[in-house]
Amino acid sequence: MSKGLPKRSENYSEWYNELVKRADLAENSAVRGCMVIKPYGFSIWEKMQRALDDMFKETGHTNAYFPLFVPKSLFEAEEKNAEGFAKECAVVTHYRLKTDPNNPGKLMVDPEAKLEEELVVRPTSEAIIWNTYKTWIQSHRDLPILINQWANVVRWEMRTRMFLRTAEFLWQEGHTAHATEKEAMEETKQMLDVYAKFVEEWMSVPVIKGYKSANERFAGAEETLCIEAMMQDGKALQAGTSHFLGQNFAKAFDVKFQNKEGKLEHVWGTSWGVSTRLMGALIMAHSDDNGLVLPPKLAPIHVVIVPIFKGEEDLAAIKAVIDPIIKELKSYGITVKFDDNDANRPGWKFAEYELKGVPVRMAIGKRDLENGVIEVARRDTLTKETRSLDGIAVYVKDLLEEIQVAIYKKAFHFREENMFKVDTWAEFEEKIEQGGFLLCHWDGTSETEEKIKELTKATIRCIPLDATEEEGKCVLTGNPSNKRVVFARAY
Amino acid sequence: MSKGLPKRSENYSEWYNELVKRADLAENSAVRGCMVIKPYGFSIWEKMQRALDDMFKETGHTNAYFPLFVPKSLFEAEEKNAEGFAKECAVVTHYRLKTDPNNPGKLMVDPEAKLEEELVVRPTSEAIIWNTYKTWIQSHRDLPILINQWANVVRWEMRTRMFLRTAEFLWQEGHTAHATEKEAMEETKQMLDVYAKFVEEWMSVPVIKGYKSANERFAGAEETLCIEAMMQDGKALQAGTSHFLGQNFAKAFDVKFQNKEGKLEHVWGTSWGVSTRLMGALIMAHSDDNGLVLPPKLAPIHVVIVPIFKGEEDLAAIKAVIDPIIKELKSYGITVKFDDNDANRPGWKFAEYELKGVPVRMAIGKRDLENGVIEVARRDTLTKETRSLDGIAVYVKDLLEEIQVAIYKKAFHFREENMFKVDTWAEFEEKIEQGGFLLCHWDGTSETEEKIKELTKATIRCIPLDATEEEGKCVLTGNPSNKRVVFARAY
Repeated sequence: MSKGLPKRSENYSEWYNELVKRADLAENSAVRGCMVIKPYGFSIWEKMQRALDDMFKETGHTNAYFPLFVPKSLFEAEEKNAEGFAKECAVVTHYRLKTDPNNPGKLMVDPEAKLEEELVVRPTSEAIIWNTYKTWIQSHRDLPILINQWANVVRWEMRTRMFLRTAEFLWQEGHTAHATEKEAMEETKQMLDVYAKFVEEWMSVPVIKGYKSANERFAGAEETLCIEAMMQDGKALQAGTSHFLGQNFAKAFDVKFQNKEGKLEHVWGTSWGVSTRLMGALIMAHSDDNGLVLPPKLAPIHVVIVPIFKGEEDLAAIKAVIDPIIKELKSYGITVKFDDNDANRPGWKFAEYELKGVPVRMAIGKRDLENGVIEVARRDTLTKETRSLDGIAVYVKDLLEEIQVAIYKKAFHFREENMFKVDTWAEFEEKIEQGGFLLCHWDGTSETEEKIKELTKATIRCIPLDATEEEGKCVLTGNPSNKRVVFARAY
Repeated sequence: MSKGLPKRSENYSEWYNELVKRADLAENSAVRGCMVIKPYGFSIWEKMQRALDDMFKETGHTNAYFPLFVPKSLFEAEEKNAEGFAKECAVVTHYRLKTDPNNPGKLMVDPEAKLEEELVVRPTSEAIIWNTYKTWIQSHRDLPILINQWANVVRWEMRTRMFLRTAEFLWQEGHTAHATEKEAMEETKQMLDVYAKFVEEWMSVPVIKGYKSANERFAGAEETLCIEAMMQDGKALQAGTSHFLGQNFAKAFDVKFQNKEGKLEHVWGTSWGVSTRLMGALIMAHSDDNGLVLPPKLAPIHVVIVPIFKGEEDLAAIKAVIDPIIKELKSYGITVKFDDNDANRPGWKFAEYELKGVPVRMAIGKRDLENGVIEVARRDTLTKETRSLDGIAVYVKDLLEEIQVAIYKKAFHFREENMFKVDTWAEFEEKIEQGGFLLCHWDGTSETEEKIKELTKATIRCIPLDATEEEGKCVLTGNPSNKRVVFARAY
């Protein structure tokens, strides 16, 4: 680390970009809008994947894999979906390069290897999957189909930011098929609950569950449910979506089943996804001016132990005491790094592990050894204490659990403080500049939503599932409304 | 199952294709040469992934993720690599579709959204990764870099077959960078050993480790090591490769490091990969005319229990006895399916689970219950026995371990029987028609290898690592040779 991070209060955006790079999470690549996810960043993503995958399997889903490419004729079959993604898709038109005759050593597209039909690199897989489901589904006995896929997708975004918006990103996409509307809607809601549970309990980020307005709905869905999280600058980040597709894709791809009464019906569908965007949410929800703050459940290293020593003898004495502690910690499933690399000074290490968000740091020197104590530092609060070596492993195990909860509470408290009931337009304009979630009445029209976006860059993040019915007037038009929705600027 | 599989002895190729489809492993998709990996097939692949990933991590590697796309200028930087893959790569030329004005409801490539530089969909990632390593490596302290990536890659193969050769496939690709030639060569060999261990111990498929001849070497490598397995038709299947890249990519991408003496040197590299092709090897090595035979370590379901019952009362009595057995089996990490679905008859179920390769099937009816016994059937040998219910869970646990070994031994024995020392050309021509591996002297020239391929379709599968030195004459030319190599027809 040559110098400190930019401060959040001074330049939040720069702080984020620098943090992503310096903490070795990701970096921009030679390919426009595509990032390289570096080993440390990827190890956090792997933990997310494992936890989510377990939750998907617990709820009866299995993984499968569908092609990367979508032939244009399938891509365009569901009209709204096609319209939504056509503007930003990568298109494969040729299947060969050849030596450029005018430029020895260089290659060019071989005009003789033009595809008969262009292939779209999947921006999402409903089209290719529903075209497959067509052959899998004949009878109600073939339903439900509960499939998930871990994959890369490409959306040719013009303005990209690492993790938050990249041309290629990694995600999972669930695609389910059901015999009834009710069952499909239950699945849509179940998966939203799975996402909310994961984001709250693993990422320690509180979320609001709600419906998207028509403007923000997934192209091709009847209803989009989402979870919205607040970042430290008061902006919203959509952390996951679960779509009720109705019979739209079944109709576009002619997917019918014989019901128990022997009648043919179109199948009902859902799709749901979370992506490497969650990494962005994780970083922006908790980290500080010293670097990452990671919830223990997702931290690649839970505890780092830094010995303070001069020479091999000191180190050996420390090791003799620390080794059994490390062993005990590991027996609790805790990942420990003992950093005795003498090329770096302890102060440098402290800063480095703060930057990397290691939840607990312990340091021990010769005198500590004599006194039977060790220094324990918490990354989330940046506090330190000296503890007896007796029972230290159990203490640290409990501390990690405490940190997991503390981080959540801190984020929850921050959100509470930055969520406002707003009833007048003047107040809306003032508050939106300060950042935060504005709970407002809205007249339910797309026109009003668009007008508000135009005036303030704020959009409806969601219509909360648990919104209470109350009489009110639209914050912009004064037209009647019966519940408050969440407005915010968003990533 | 409408009717039985084609027989291996009558049409091996059709047997394979039908088995892949009927056992719900994979199917062809709407995209030329790309397959859909179905849930049952994918769950086997997931087990492979998990085991391999653990082995990579144990040997010090971490995962990361690099972009799907390789800009043409990077793709062409390492000349031999570019030459090797240019002929079969998917090329993205545009980033948008638009409504076709002559064809309402249809989309077309938007000519205004042409990329300045074409993007190649990665057929392998050396180029994009070494271009990244350039910025990561300055000093010997930055080495080694030991990274693996799980990804999809695309090679525009003209003749495709599910799992064995598909336009898109899933794989892992390790890419490592080292300070010395020796270390890079050790890594190359270490990863070959990891692959051999996995294929032999998890897949129960014996392999021969060896060097590829220059003709069969990876484009851009100095040396390619491989493991070769024999399929039941006597053909060879390359199951994994590990490449010593020398300094080729370091030179192409100008990747240098300062060594301990302060001098700049080019970095040494390796790459290594296995793919969903392993699924093809697994299927073709063990399965029979009744369906899949899976080694227990990779079977999604280890044990299926089929109750033979008439009515709820029978079933309840069976369940009361079987439930604790299932519980005990699960406590050993064994996956059990209890199939009491009364829509299908037991005979249908037996055939179905044979098709799916479930290693152990148990069946129990009312009379068995009275006698305190259960029928245990082994998938690999198709043998049945009646066993006491006492201690049955432990028996099955041991049986699964026995099956894992038995499958390996059977495949090993088959290979031994179909591997021949051949010293004359007449014998070569005769034996190669029967299938199998021919151990022959070869004069070491590419010309001879090509001539033999032309005449017999056989290639050098590898020059075994453990080949003994012996004086001999090339089987085709009679020129001197000092060791035998493996010739075979290959997938």
